[in-house]
Amino acid sequence: STTYRVCTLPGDGIGPEIIAEGKKVLAALGEKYDVEFVCEDHLIGGAAIDATEAAGGPVSALPPETLEAAKASEAVLLAAVGGPKWTDTRMGAVRPEQGLLAIRKELGLYLNLRPVRMFDALIDASTLKREVLTGVDLIIVRELTGGLYFGGHERTMGVEGAGVGGTRGEYARDILEYSEYEVDRVVRWAFDAARRRRGVVHSVDKANVLDTSRMWREVAHNIAAEYPDVRLEDMYVDNAAMQLIANPAQFDVLVTENTFGDILSDEASMLTGSLGMLASASLGDGTALYEPSHGSAPDIAGQGIANPIAQILSVELMLRYSFGMDDAADELAAAVTRVLDEGWRTGDIADESTPAEKVLGTAAMGDKIVEAL
Amino acid sequence: STTYRVCTLPGDGIGPEIIAEGKKVLAALGEKYDVEFVCEDHLIGGAAIDATEAAGGPVSALPPETLEAAKASEAVLLAAVGGPKWTDTRMGAVRPEQGLLAIRKELGLYLNLRPVRMFDALIDASTLKREVLTGVDLIIVRELTGGLYFGGHERTMGVEGAGVGGTRGEYARDILEYSEYEVDRVVRWAFDAARRRRGVVHSVDKANVLDTSRMWREVAHNIAAEYPDVRLEDMYVDNAAMQLIANPAQFDVLVTENTFGDILSDEASMLTGSLGMLASASLGDGTALYEPSHGSAPDIAGQGIANPIAQILSVELMLRYSFGMDDAADELAAAVTRVLDEGWRTGDIADESTPAEKVLGTAAMGDKIVEAL
Ligand SMILES: CC(C)[C@H](C(=O)O)[C@@H](O)C(=O)O
Ligand SMILES: CC(C)[C@H](C(=O)O)[C@@H](O)C(=O)O
Repeated sequence: STTYRVCTLPGDGIGPEIIAEGKKVLAALGEKYDVEFVCEDHLIGGAAIDATEAAGGPVSALPPETLEAAKASEAVLLAAVGGPKWTDTRMGAVRPEQGLLAIRKELGLYLNLRPVRMFDALIDASTLKREVLTGVDLIIVRELTGGLYFGGHERTMGVEGAGVGGTRGEYARDILEYSEYEVDRVVRWAFDAARRRRGVVHSVDKANVLDTSRMWREVAHNIAAEYPDVRLEDMYVDNAAMQLIANPAQFDVLVTENTFGDILSDEASMLTGSLGMLASASLGDGTALYEPSHGSAPDIAGQGIANPIAQILSVELMLRYSFGMDDAADELAAAVTRVLDEGWRTGDIADESTPAEKVLGTAAMGDKIVEAL
Repeated sequence: STTYRVCTLPGDGIGPEIIAEGKKVLAALGEKYDVEFVCEDHLIGGAAIDATEAAGGPVSALPPETLEAAKASEAVLLAAVGGPKWTDTRMGAVRPEQGLLAIRKELGLYLNLRPVRMFDALIDASTLKREVLTGVDLIIVRELTGGLYFGGHERTMGVEGAGVGGTRGEYARDILEYSEYEVDRVVRWAFDAARRRRGVVHSVDKANVLDTSRMWREVAHNIAAEYPDVRLEDMYVDNAAMQLIANPAQFDVLVTENTFGDILSDEASMLTGSLGMLASASLGDGTALYEPSHGSAPDIAGQGIANPIAQILSVELMLRYSFGMDDAADELAAAVTRVLDEGWRTGDIADESTPAEKVLGTAAMGDKIVEAL
């Protein structure tokens, strides 16, 4: 039987509770498909900050051991990082998110994939009308190791003639930078994905203002020439923010810059009514990373009530993209759908019509899904 | 009687049609309030590109005469710029939007104000559920002459060691830059506005990634200390994109960076169901500029069917912010509401339940509103 090493990163808040359910599902599927998944926990985020601080070594949100372990694994399963304990915004303070940004960069995860898929059973949980949501099935492909996140950041004191404000106080600068190469690989991935889907790519930019966007648009059009079976649509980012609400069913594959993707994918997540249902895959040329789209929800941590479904769906993406186990992935997706169709809910996705006995805790929801497999 | 000079900029597409209705309303109110509004048309956008090209002079989307006239006026009323005729994206080509960006910069319009207000009569036109929209009344304050739009843009060829991609092809860079001074004046304006409204400011940033955002946040907190009666909430831009759909009624005044504001204000416009209803004011220390939030809609230009309401509501903002004529502004807003309540519609905001005789063209809608005054 095959053995896969999975580096599991519980992180903070509800992280340890939900990742346990992800492992449970992985174990069940491993047994069924005769694959052994060897999971090993490592520290990231606030948990890593606390541990490295206690050890008296350099404080880090991504200790070297964690990075080594991630690199030596076939896949990384992350839960969530962050919490009120580590919100120190003073210059120089180490923040949990730095662990996330660092692992993306260090593993070369240049692409974040977020599928936005509607579950019929939950369609009324959305603030959007049912008729707008019918037929929504899109993926957002976000560039993840470049753009405004990684072009450089600085704060300086004002100098004569430096800009509006002159010598008055401080200046800050963040640089949005791309090479053609970086744009090419992520847009190409989007075209390949569209070819296996409904054949439409929306390339989202701000080419009426930004040079990076004008270059992005040129690269996209060059690639489009190689994919006569895929339709390319350019769309301005402000218009995309509108269209995602006005007519989300028009999208198949949406590809965009890091910051634009951060904003648009969170916006799009609202179509489904709950962040608790969405998973993401961060892919590159080596080990990939899978995580829920939601945060660490420190307010409900330790109560056993968090929704583990996004974490479980990130396992689905792992099966698909890291292990090529499409059958197991399909089966897992079907199991989640069935459990929801049967009316089982966690607190965040329950409504007035949900009978109390159908509301499950974190572990019970994980068990139900394993049962449905 | 007082005389005010208004520089009117019809621009492109439906621009000339809708600005005519704006002038009509201005004339009617001028009579009523014993004020003379002297409107003078000037060229901007594609229309200016064509005219300057035909004249054989330097091609410009904002000719010097227009800028002079704008500066010499008490207010500027703009319709819309752009169209398929001028979408040449080649380097060096003059584009209509450059006229818009240039007039903002040249007039020092450092703040764009966009009120998002629900009209009861149109609440069902939104793709969001009625219950989510109840009580929505927010303004977005967008920084308009700095940020990612104005920090500098460049394209260069790759050089050894320049970044991901090395010497492969081109690089592009856009700089997001702010001075404390630039942040201070726009955030302060937001606090002043909140004090006259419901007393809440959401300062939207990406302080977990950007240095400009961390500086922005510090400036906002320093200002908050001077406004004990206003509540300041920091919000990440990705979360704001979610919250605007999940629970828009929580917002009173939202203040943010130029690009973030561009994206979020278009997103928020969808709450009202139609871009045809939203106006914006661009304010600075001198002459202010008022325009609809929508574009030049070249596909319906010249047909007399465009919705002039956003243009008319931009006149309302002009009365308020440039002329301190709050009574006239209130009266105009009430007239628009009454016309909608009576069931009058333009094509874009009509639905299956609208009887054919209630669907008006551009000029007829302008007349109805003047009649209701
Ligand atoms: C936590 C934060 C740095 C991160 C990001 O902005 O990338 C998060 O919002 C995400 O989308 O994964
Ligand atoms: C046309 C474009 C340059 C402009 C902008 O991005 O500012 C528009 O989207 C706006 O919001 O007024």
